[in-house]
Amino acid sequence: MTGDAHTPDRRLPSHPFDPDDDKLREECGVYGVFGAPDAASFVALGLHALQHRGQEAAGVAAHEGEPNGFNIVRRLGHVRDSFTTAEVIKALPGRLALGHVRYSTAGAKGATAIRDVQPLYAEFAQGGFAIAHNGNIVNADALRAELIERGSIFQSSSDTECIVHLMARSIQRSAAERMKDALRRVEGAYSIIAMTRSKMIGVRDPLGVRPLVLGRAGDAWILSSESCALDIVGAEFVRDVAPGEMVIISDDGVESQFPFQPSKPRFCVFEYVYFSRPDSVIGGLSVYETRRRIGVELAREAPVEADLICPVPDSGTPAAIGYSQESGVPYAMGIIRNQYVGRTFIEPSEQIRNMGVRLKLNVNRAVVAGKRVVLVDDSVVRGTTSRKIKEMVLDAGAAEVHLRIASPPTTWPCFYGVDTPDKEKLLAATMSEEEMRDHLGVDSLRFVSLDGLYRACGVAEGRDDRAPQFCDACFSGDYPVAPSDRIAQGRLKLAAE
Amino acid sequence: MTGDAHTPDRRLPSHPFDPDDDKLREECGVYGVFGAPDAASFVALGLHALQHRGQEAAGVAAHEGEPNGFNIVRRLGHVRDSFTTAEVIKALPGRLALGHVRYSTAGAKGATAIRDVQPLYAEFAQGGFAIAHNGNIVNADALRAELIERGSIFQSSSDTECIVHLMARSIQRSAAERMKDALRRVEGAYSIIAMTRSKMIGVRDPLGVRPLVLGRAGDAWILSSESCALDIVGAEFVRDVAPGEMVIISDDGVESQFPFQPSKPRFCVFEYVYFSRPDSVIGGLSVYETRRRIGVELAREAPVEADLICPVPDSGTPAAIGYSQESGVPYAMGIIRNQYVGRTFIEPSEQIRNMGVRLKLNVNRAVVAGKRVVLVDDSVVRGTTSRKIKEMVLDAGAAEVHLRIASPPTTWPCFYGVDTPDKEKLLAATMSEEEMRDHLGVDSLRFVSLDGLYRACGVAEGRDDRAPQFCDACFSGDYPVAPSDRIAQGRLKLAAE
Amino acid sequence: MTGDAHTPDRRLPSHPFDPDDDKLREECGVYGVFGAPDAASFVALGLHALQHRGQEAAGVAAHEGEPNGFNIVRRLGHVRDSFTTAEVIKALPGRLALGHVRYSTAGAKGATAIRDVQPLYAEFAQGGFAIAHNGNIVNADALRAELIERGSIFQSSSDTECIVHLMARSIQRSAAERMKDALRRVEGAYSIIAMTRSKMIGVRDPLGVRPLVLGRAGDAWILSSESCALDIVGAEFVRDVAPGEMVIISDDGVESQFPFQPSKPRFCVFEYVYFSRPDSVIGGLSVYETRRRIGVELAREAPVEADLICPVPDSGTPAAIGYSQESGVPYAMGIIRNQYVGRTFIEPSEQIRNMGVRLKLNVNRAVVAGKRVVLVDDSVVRGTTSRKIKEMVLDAGAAEVHLRIASPPTTWPCFYGVDTPDKEKLLAATMSEEEMRDHLGVDSLRFVSLDGLYRACGVAEGRDDRAPQFCDACFSGDYPVAPSDRIAQGRLKLAAE
Amino acid sequence: MTGDAHTPDRRLPSHPFDPDDDKLREECGVYGVFGAPDAASFVALGLHALQHRGQEAAGVAAHEGEPNGFNIVRRLGHVRDSFTTAEVIKALPGRLALGHVRYSTAGAKGATAIRDVQPLYAEFAQGGFAIAHNGNIVNADALRAELIERGSIFQSSSDTECIVHLMARSIQRSAAERMKDALRRVEGAYSIIAMTRSKMIGVRDPLGVRPLVLGRAGDAWILSSESCALDIVGAEFVRDVAPGEMVIISDDGVESQFPFQPSKPRFCVFEYVYFSRPDSVIGGLSVYETRRRIGVELAREAPVEADLICPVPDSGTPAAIGYSQESGVPYAMGIIRNQYVGRTFIEPSEQIRNMGVRLKLNVNRAVVAGKRVVLVDDSVVRGTTSRKIKEMVLDAGAAEVHLRIASPPTTWPCFYGVDTPDKEKLLAATMSEEEMRDHLGVDSLRFVSLDGLYRACGVAEGRDDRAPQFCDACFSGDYPVAPSDRIAQGRLKLAAE
Repeated sequence: MTGDAHTPDRRLPSHPFDPDDDKLREECGVYGVFGAPDAASFVALGLHALQHRGQEAAGVAAHEGEPNGFNIVRRLGHVRDSFTTAEVIKALPGRLALGHVRYSTAGAKGATAIRDVQPLYAEFAQGGFAIAHNGNIVNADALRAELIERGSIFQSSSDTECIVHLMARSIQRSAAERMKDALRRVEGAYSIIAMTRSKMIGVRDPLGVRPLVLGRAGDAWILSSESCALDIVGAEFVRDVAPGEMVIISDDGVESQFPFQPSKPRFCVFEYVYFSRPDSVIGGLSVYETRRRIGVELAREAPVEADLICPVPDSGTPAAIGYSQESGVPYAMGIIRNQYVGRTFIEPSEQIRNMGVRLKLNVNRAVVAGKRVVLVDDSVVRGTTSRKIKEMVLDAGAAEVHLRIASPPTTWPCFYGVDTPDKEKLLAATMSEEEMRDHLGVDSLRFVSLDGLYRACGVAEGRDDRAPQFCDACFSGDYPVAPSDRIAQGRLKLAAE
Repeated sequence: MTGDAHTPDRRLPSHPFDPDDDKLREECGVYGVFGAPDAASFVALGLHALQHRGQEAAGVAAHEGEPNGFNIVRRLGHVRDSFTTAEVIKALPGRLALGHVRYSTAGAKGATAIRDVQPLYAEFAQGGFAIAHNGNIVNADALRAELIERGSIFQSSSDTECIVHLMARSIQRSAAERMKDALRRVEGAYSIIAMTRSKMIGVRDPLGVRPLVLGRAGDAWILSSESCALDIVGAEFVRDVAPGEMVIISDDGVESQFPFQPSKPRFCVFEYVYFSRPDSVIGGLSVYETRRRIGVELAREAPVEADLICPVPDSGTPAAIGYSQESGVPYAMGIIRNQYVGRTFIEPSEQIRNMGVRLKLNVNRAVVAGKRVVLVDDSVVRGTTSRKIKEMVLDAGAAEVHLRIASPPTTWPCFYGVDTPDKEKLLAATMSEEEMRDHLGVDSLRFVSLDGLYRACGVAEGRDDRAPQFCDACFSGDYPVAPSDRIAQGRLKLAAE
Repeated sequence: MTGDAHTPDRRLPSHPFDPDDDKLREECGVYGVFGAPDAASFVALGLHALQHRGQEAAGVAAHEGEPNGFNIVRRLGHVRDSFTTAEVIKALPGRLALGHVRYSTAGAKGATAIRDVQPLYAEFAQGGFAIAHNGNIVNADALRAELIERGSIFQSSSDTECIVHLMARSIQRSAAERMKDALRRVEGAYSIIAMTRSKMIGVRDPLGVRPLVLGRAGDAWILSSESCALDIVGAEFVRDVAPGEMVIISDDGVESQFPFQPSKPRFCVFEYVYFSRPDSVIGGLSVYETRRRIGVELAREAPVEADLICPVPDSGTPAAIGYSQESGVPYAMGIIRNQYVGRTFIEPSEQIRNMGVRLKLNVNRAVVAGKRVVLVDDSVVRGTTSRKIKEMVLDAGAAEVHLRIASPPTTWPCFYGVDTPDKEKLLAATMSEEEMRDHLGVDSLRFVSLDGLYRACGVAEGRDDRAPQFCDACFSGDYPVAPSDRIAQGRLKLAAE
Repeated sequence: MTGDAHTPDRRLPSHPFDPDDDKLREECGVYGVFGAPDAASFVALGLHALQHRGQEAAGVAAHEGEPNGFNIVRRLGHVRDSFTTAEVIKALPGRLALGHVRYSTAGAKGATAIRDVQPLYAEFAQGGFAIAHNGNIVNADALRAELIERGSIFQSSSDTECIVHLMARSIQRSAAERMKDALRRVEGAYSIIAMTRSKMIGVRDPLGVRPLVLGRAGDAWILSSESCALDIVGAEFVRDVAPGEMVIISDDGVESQFPFQPSKPRFCVFEYVYFSRPDSVIGGLSVYETRRRIGVELAREAPVEADLICPVPDSGTPAAIGYSQESGVPYAMGIIRNQYVGRTFIEPSEQIRNMGVRLKLNVNRAVVAGKRVVLVDDSVVRGTTSRKIKEMVLDAGAAEVHLRIASPPTTWPCFYGVDTPDKEKLLAATMSEEEMRDHLGVDSLRFVSLDGLYRACGVAEGRDDRAPQFCDACFSGDYPVAPSDRIAQGRLKLAAE
């Protein structure tokens, strides 16, 4: 309906073959620091460690005490480009700070408007308030329409702004109580960090779909999407914030509340498959080790005669190591990733394009030539990447190419804060495993089973179909929270129907 | 209380002697175009012609029809730097557009936050709405506190946002009716241009303190702060919008309404003295000719034996011409202004500073040496410039320096959209004419009388003290609208008290 | 032949009607400071005052003592944008500095390559050497071909680089002696400032075509193209450097030498007409006063019945004042110049263009309507501006428009450091005065005579045709130095032939 | 002596612990394309693939045919940031283009001046000439002094400029013959690509110290430092350019000449150890496979009881794989590299620093805790990184840390185009293996032997000490070309002495 083009960018054509385009994308990471001098410099480091959760934009809010109060800087682009100067950190003084990295789910697609970059800020009668959110509110459209009708003026297209307007209209006095009022109206997945001038609040939705951890660095408390962002500042991991828990951090310490109806947790299993960093520990499990174990399960379920196990870098690496270890077939770097990444590059001329430009990945020709190669990747979304990589490996002279996928077939979109193509664009939603094998042109194709995935995640007995231990809707269509806006728009027909 | 530092700039030290620092500053200009293809390119040109009314920032909103609706670009800096590329105009398609140049009165002082740059935009239940405002709302603080208490979330520190929130809560359906509801709660001076997807609205406050004119360019209608911005696009001047009038422009033409209680008009007399451009015509008077006539009045009231009449460029030029013509003393360019202006320059070393750097003005030494010189300037605010210029002219060898001011002594601050120093900083508020003469170190000093000024403005009988024909509060302390926020804060004691 | 596009700029379409495009352009200004701490900050100020002599680029070289030696910064754009930060001045420490502003004559036309921006720098066996040049070498092509043949490698397309290579091959040891060797091979016009680590050298060609003055600021010596750039730093004017003089400034003071065959001086008369700033004094004459006197001569030679004398701002202003004073017809600002200049602006749509956009100049409609107007301008080059302005004044309702030009008809190109159109583009080279009047569509057109111009320049008896006191080749075709490259290329047929 | 600060950057403090700082650095890569439309876009892609050979700056020269000839763009920073827009490629039209990425060896250290960025360009009497160079000229200082004495003016501090000035003074007519004249005066290591308007020349020094390969893409010929940069554009590998060979590419095809005295080749063995990309094939050997075999040799020479083999990413990875395969100890990603690299980051506060910030590397705590870990790295230079990583691994709870290095101890600086610390900064030059083990604080430390390295490079019988097959001066002090400038300066005492 509207767009506030503060910085109307010339859009560069992205390259036709970018292997990273064919992934599900986590769209946010959040990070908060309470009680450290120059809290914003901690936050900048933490966001850098969470950069894989959102590369389009980043923002930091800090409170410098009265009378100046809150300062907020929001920028498009990477943390290393936007938040690395002394100037920007000097513009964000104070002991309390929180930040956000963002891809883009709800909100204007395509060109991220700077106004949609979080943290959001609002001034209530009781004082200022900043908030950052990882997840997605599935009834945001309905809430927005209701609020506008009553005179609220929205400044962004972010679903998070609903929470702020609901809080503004609450008759409670404290920010924490106003937030509870607001969240009781909200459906969906969320891990939120918020702050007033004297308190920092962390909260996870009742199912705990998205991660949130608590850390400690000297006297300071830290909230972070993942534990790897505690390591970067040398902080100590304390514990996961529990599903449905609200922690309220003040100079008196950390207070824990459980404001919602208790539910059985349903943590997102795809965080283990791809989203989280391998050096994070979530829900007591090492992400790296879990991925390696998926490779082990895969080798057991789908062995193959071959000469080499090669990961599709970097996401397939831990599972490939596991597969190699379980199968005894040697592991090799058959595909090399250019470390000087860069998504935008000149559109190549027809001539170059036809020759097949390889900006990010190159096959290690001398390694794969004449070999029977097993490629291990984390997932197949549209299949465009897999097909292209297979061609590159064959062009380099491989004798056979077998594809092993460290997750079950992705057949359903996610509505809980992940950017997924529509169902009809998901390869596995439209083809059987055999059809996919033929479509991709590989000698064999196998996915790990849902039970195998659960076993790698530490559930020895596999998935409990009546009460699944994780959210695996992208594989099963079993949505733990009904995506009500989508259903209202007639844009989704659920599996059950 | 808070600041949203989207672009925290390193502030450069401005030069210690900038003659333009010692001026009252008009803080805004507005411009709207209805019914031209590429309306935004007209608006960019119009804002360039209104640049003297605000140099800190500019913004343009345009409506490109459904489904994309409104686009807005706001930038710090000059129009010629921000709105001159094909890219920015391409980002603002459509037949309706409005724009704003801004100095800064209400809102965060100093570093203009981009969020305070107008036009403001809001989405109401009935559709989008953009607004730009020249003037100042004197009860904005009280309105803001009331609105926040009721759950409105403010995004800027601009007083204009009060109007938007009042409109959002109106139960009227059309934007024009909502605006009337809102403006009836508002006290102060305003010339506003607003637009919906199909209408453009122009309105002046009941006293008509700030200017607003209507023009025509082919089939298109134009609203502008001044007529010089009609000339730049080759448009035709139609008429002034009347004090208290609301014009509603649609594809059906221009509708005129008078929604307020009728009042006797009180147009700002300082627009004639300094703010407006000399090639504008306001209220039927040529600004240039009015200034020349002030010089004529001044020559009659305050003659002096001299060799040369020299303007302080550029604002003193028309009055100096008039003074020369009436007195018969030759006119000469005794002071030269560097056309390559630039406010920011390196802080000179102690050595250079002591020698007296002259970035903007230079005395034409060969012209003034040995002469009795009459300097004509438009006004004296703090007196810092006058004193410095006098020294420069004496250093260059002038025999005598007489100062003639083309306005009465400035003794009161303005609350209607002009940036004025506090009363105690105004030289004329603290000294008699003789004291000022001694303080400035000139051989004689004279101001035009208030009656002389009124005569130059076409009121042959001079000021009617019981019902003054203009707003002249800065000279008289006679405020036509009580500045209620200031009084509530105890920060102003009125003349009458 | 080649271009080193360090910064290949997107060229913005300049506006179709820019009155400043129809001028001859001085192409350089030079400024040097010997013996001041932070000499570069003086130079930045001096170049700002000389900005009218070249707006495309600026450069500053400074020597900070051993071991670091010379630092040089060269930038495209205005001094106020490029040399105003503490950072850039900090990058240029030292007591000796020199600078240059440039338009572009010799060297790549159009997009100024940064490598053509002066000062040039070279390392000789005896040490480093920086040089900046105002003027033009007319045998540069021949010298360049000879030097390349002998193994010199040119880095720029600047004619000044010939001097540097000639110096590199000199067998003299001191920079001053090498420079004399080089300049004896050079033909043309030049005012040069050069420096070694311990000396600053200023030199004017034997005819003294371009200006160069010597000033004093405390203990420091200053060399500058014009005296107005001494005023800006509060320095004292000492004297003109004489035609054919070389001054060598060291810690021992100023040494004067005359290395060339003596000639009768031929200072460029167009410096008085247009190039120099009105507040400069050159050759003992005030530029402002000279221009005013041209107006007086013009009023005597070409009077007319009229109501108003209006300058074409800003260059016609002093002559218009003189004309008004001599004729007794009132002076008025009939045309207003927008002080927020900016050459680049969006290409207006067809619709706007047809209405006649007025970015820089606007007619003061209320002043000229119904009046017989005399427009006074400094010169006519192509005539495009004069024609356009005449139309604007008539559109605004003037009864008659008379044009008076404060210089003789411009009929020949300049080869001494001024950017002139080819002869066939010069209006006066192809038409008689009557034809020009008809072409421009004015009621009358008159130029000041060559003798009148000489009288205004203080030569009471007018021009001595056998030994003219000035270089007036652009009016007379009488070239004091034969432009040998041009003749060799067959691109010029001299008047005498 | 001098610096031409075109873009004087504020230098950001780099982070105190950057593992990439403790590496030898290859300083250049070169790439040329003959006979493809838009050759510059190929070159941009090729340079992106060679980015690991130089990250400070890049340049591209292209010839667009007469009359415009050569265009050159040189920029600081990464290829992906500087050469990815359509605009920059449009500024470089033509069928011939060559490019260069640069770290910095000879030339101004620290802030790379843009004038030192290659390709260099010169205009000879016979036409334009561009050149790019990987390597280092060891008698450049002597040559430069001689050339300046004879009147050559140097524009850069690059050693490559000596070649250009020697060519300018050659009496030969063709560029290839001039180049032979010049190279016969030059001592050192070089792989050069040069071009005239119609020819492209590639040449390797007689010992072939630096790599250079020839490829084919359709009708176009390509010269590249490494074969991985052929793959990126889909080009075919043809062959290595031979040591001492000059290839001259024209529309008639590729002509091969051997202008130098024949020598036994001495290719740089460190290209296999670290400099080249693992997916390149040089001298018939796969770089990846060679590194893996070094790991195998290392496992044989220096086995250890352990639980895990962990690479120091990314340079230690192939050797770690080989070590694991030979030893049977499982391979694991015990250290994770943040893919969002960024060398510059805010200087952390004292508090954060003390906690140990980990911008680039993080230990995978869950993987190494309680384990006996073998870390495999490619080399030890100063040892700062190894020490820091060992601490991180122990902090994460490892039981033992053993360090295995996939190259012999680095004890001598390189003078052939590699940035090496002075000898006394090289850890292995000052300590025995035991002392190093204690200094680094590891449980054991072992380097591969020189013979082991040669075996991995395919020399089954190991190094031939009388006629070594590679240049291994950094390990042996056996310099195949005497570094004459260094010896003249008394800054190097050779091993033999």
